[in-house]
Amino acid sequence: MKSPVRLALLGCGTVGAEVVRLLHEQSADLAARIGAPLEIAGIAVRRIGRDRGDLPVDPALFTTDALGLIKRDDVDVVVEVVGGLEPARSWLLEALRAGKSVVTANKALLAEDGGALHDAAAEGGGDLYYEASVAGAIPLLRPLRESLHGDRVTQVTGIVNGTTNFILSAMHATGAGFAEALEEATELGYAEADPTADVEGFDAAAKAAILASLAFHTRVSAADVHREGITEVTAADMASAKAMGCTIKLLCIAARGADAAGRETISVRVHPALIPLSHPLASVGDAFNAVFIEAEAAGQLMFYGRGAGGAPTASAVLGDVVAVARNRLAGVRAASESAYAALPVRPMGEALTRYHISLDVADRPGVLEAVAGVFARHDVSIATVRQGPSGGGTGDAVLVIVTHVAPDAALAATVDELRGLEIVRSVASVLRVEGGL
Amino acid sequence: MKSPVRLALLGCGTVGAEVVRLLHEQSADLAARIGAPLEIAGIAVRRIGRDRGDLPVDPALFTTDALGLIKRDDVDVVVEVVGGLEPARSWLLEALRAGKSVVTANKALLAEDGGALHDAAAEGGGDLYYEASVAGAIPLLRPLRESLHGDRVTQVTGIVNGTTNFILSAMHATGAGFAEALEEATELGYAEADPTADVEGFDAAAKAAILASLAFHTRVSAADVHREGITEVTAADMASAKAMGCTIKLLCIAARGADAAGRETISVRVHPALIPLSHPLASVGDAFNAVFIEAEAAGQLMFYGRGAGGAPTASAVLGDVVAVARNRLAGVRAASESAYAALPVRPMGEALTRYHISLDVADRPGVLEAVAGVFARHDVSIATVRQGPSGGGTGDAVLVIVTHVAPDAALAATVDELRGLEIVRSVASVLRVEGGL
Repeated sequence: MKSPVRLALLGCGTVGAEVVRLLHEQSADLAARIGAPLEIAGIAVRRIGRDRGDLPVDPALFTTDALGLIKRDDVDVVVEVVGGLEPARSWLLEALRAGKSVVTANKALLAEDGGALHDAAAEGGGDLYYEASVAGAIPLLRPLRESLHGDRVTQVTGIVNGTTNFILSAMHATGAGFAEALEEATELGYAEADPTADVEGFDAAAKAAILASLAFHTRVSAADVHREGITEVTAADMASAKAMGCTIKLLCIAARGADAAGRETISVRVHPALIPLSHPLASVGDAFNAVFIEAEAAGQLMFYGRGAGGAPTASAVLGDVVAVARNRLAGVRAASESAYAALPVRPMGEALTRYHISLDVADRPGVLEAVAGVFARHDVSIATVRQGPSGGGTGDAVLVIVTHVAPDAALAATVDELRGLEIVRSVASVLRVEGGL
Repeated sequence: MKSPVRLALLGCGTVGAEVVRLLHEQSADLAARIGAPLEIAGIAVRRIGRDRGDLPVDPALFTTDALGLIKRDDVDVVVEVVGGLEPARSWLLEALRAGKSVVTANKALLAEDGGALHDAAAEGGGDLYYEASVAGAIPLLRPLRESLHGDRVTQVTGIVNGTTNFILSAMHATGAGFAEALEEATELGYAEADPTADVEGFDAAAKAAILASLAFHTRVSAADVHREGITEVTAADMASAKAMGCTIKLLCIAARGADAAGRETISVRVHPALIPLSHPLASVGDAFNAVFIEAEAAGQLMFYGRGAGGAPTASAVLGDVVAVARNRLAGVRAASESAYAALPVRPMGEALTRYHISLDVADRPGVLEAVAGVFARHDVSIATVRQGPSGGGTGDAVLVIVTHVAPDAALAATVDELRGLEIVRSVASVLRVEGGL
């Protein structure tokens, strides 16, 4: 057995503590799998004195000097589970440039500045692994990074945020509105006190950027991702979805396409969308995550599991630790970043989407003709129209229209013009449609 | 760009032709991802003259001399899509010992003699990759081999044979019997003219051995796998399953356990089993494959996709080709076989299972007492009993019993003794139960 591979752990919250526990419990297995034992060289925390229960680790390993720990010569691998942009970015850049390997779960940092981290890893010659940054324990990045490299991925569609999936699943199951479902999620610990990052789609957008980068061999950052959250999804939207045999999910979508000149592009977006109940993603309930991948040769694949939580995330972190430790012992690095394709990211207006539009209209002859005329003027073709009496008892009617695929800007302009029609009392709901309804 | 990595392709049937096509179509992308172009050095086939349609490849590359091709100095990677034990085994041993890297889809050979192949790879210093051998395009072996190496897998439960899943899905949907459903599968091309390898569970057993080896870091061969096929599953069994909110699937199960002395063991088996419709594997329909993995930290994971077919299998083969080509260029090999745990495989009689037993019994007082006594004598505890009039109109009754978990041998002995009871007219159906019913 070779001499130990030594880890610096940055952060000792829920995930960090679980990493420590697993390193302890699995130490013999991990050593056998790596060919050398793993040792914790130090654990950087904000406060040394905090009660950490019965964590199986020497208290002398704790330090508040993260940078000093990272720079130590006897540290081979830096494991970062602090999260956030700073100081994590400075720490990891320092570690990578010094030739250490890095394992991180920090999706926000990777989506903001992944390119700089990859460059620093290439400069220092260490590995940069981040399986835990997307969909927790689900092995997803390694399959995308490696298994599908002989194929051409056409689309990645994912449910990658557990909080919003819990809320939308509750709205589907009980008919509750957003506020009520959010309250339940908060009570059960599925939503944080400030749920903004989740419900406004920031968390999912960071993951979308990471998935798109790997799937399309292109640097994609969070700023490239069109983002809409779920705060405006109403109980009426969900009821309307159910009436059509659908549900509403917050999807992250990264898709290959082409611009007007036929040049290959990608679009990356996060927004709520209707999907048919028969779609494999529709049955992903509660706080589970799942990612649906379509590739030219492989066809449709789905990966499903727990997207968050201390133990699942720690499992993904440790899988990466084993890989980078093995690489260090073998004196090699993993395949570096693959960003050769450098495909342009198309603006949302050019992304091809479908809309589900619900209108309250005057109940008189000529209404459908007038409405259909608006769609025609914007070159948007209508797939289905359902017309019925309004539930409001005002003598008005409801028109529910599902379009064919069209550029998002044309669909948005259609909705704008509909709002201005005298016969349209109100646009009750506008939702995108995905998953081949 | 470095000089080409050169491939010898052994076999040019459905999968081989698709590999050739993808190598041609994706050549620029593959070269960018690898850092060097891939080139076909030769293609070994049985008959040179066969019409291969418009395969985009120089006809001069075809040869009937597989061994000569393998031995050529300008061949770096050998891709085997011939299948079967011989001559594939001799060819791959020759290739590996000569230091070539091997990518193979040959599950039968890996399950029979994987150890010898791994030894030869270690001796020669090349890589041995076989993602396509289990569940076609689904990236499954790499996650098991790498992503979950920081975790402790407790059970792998898979639907890994498309033919039997198509048949059982049809039986569930239409109420058809086995023979009728098999006929439909044959007509639609889902079953081969001789379906033995599929319907008797040999194909699934080979895959079970491969999955168990990776999940438990232990060499497991096909001979270690308890195997039962689906030929005896009747329309009545399926109807009974549906009445309980279940369906019947052919499952491959590899589970960690302990023997009587508390020593860690594994059990590996393939058999039809009842699973609740709410289990994620229950909704895997048609010829799809899915593998459900339970690990201590990661929790429950599921991988889903197409398990067979030329293009999906070729996608998995090419993913492996990219990986081994990169390794060769970097002058490294992947982590070698991990078989350090060498856990003993428990005989089926000691595996812990649950039974669903349907009995035609005489309709008179004391029957349940007599039946319950048999279970008690074998230390098998009963979970539920459902009693109802027989459908046969004979004045008899039906008893449907679901047990708790017990050693398979105790359950089998219970059924044997039940058959001998005077009050038991017949044991109508015996099925194992999985998935937490």
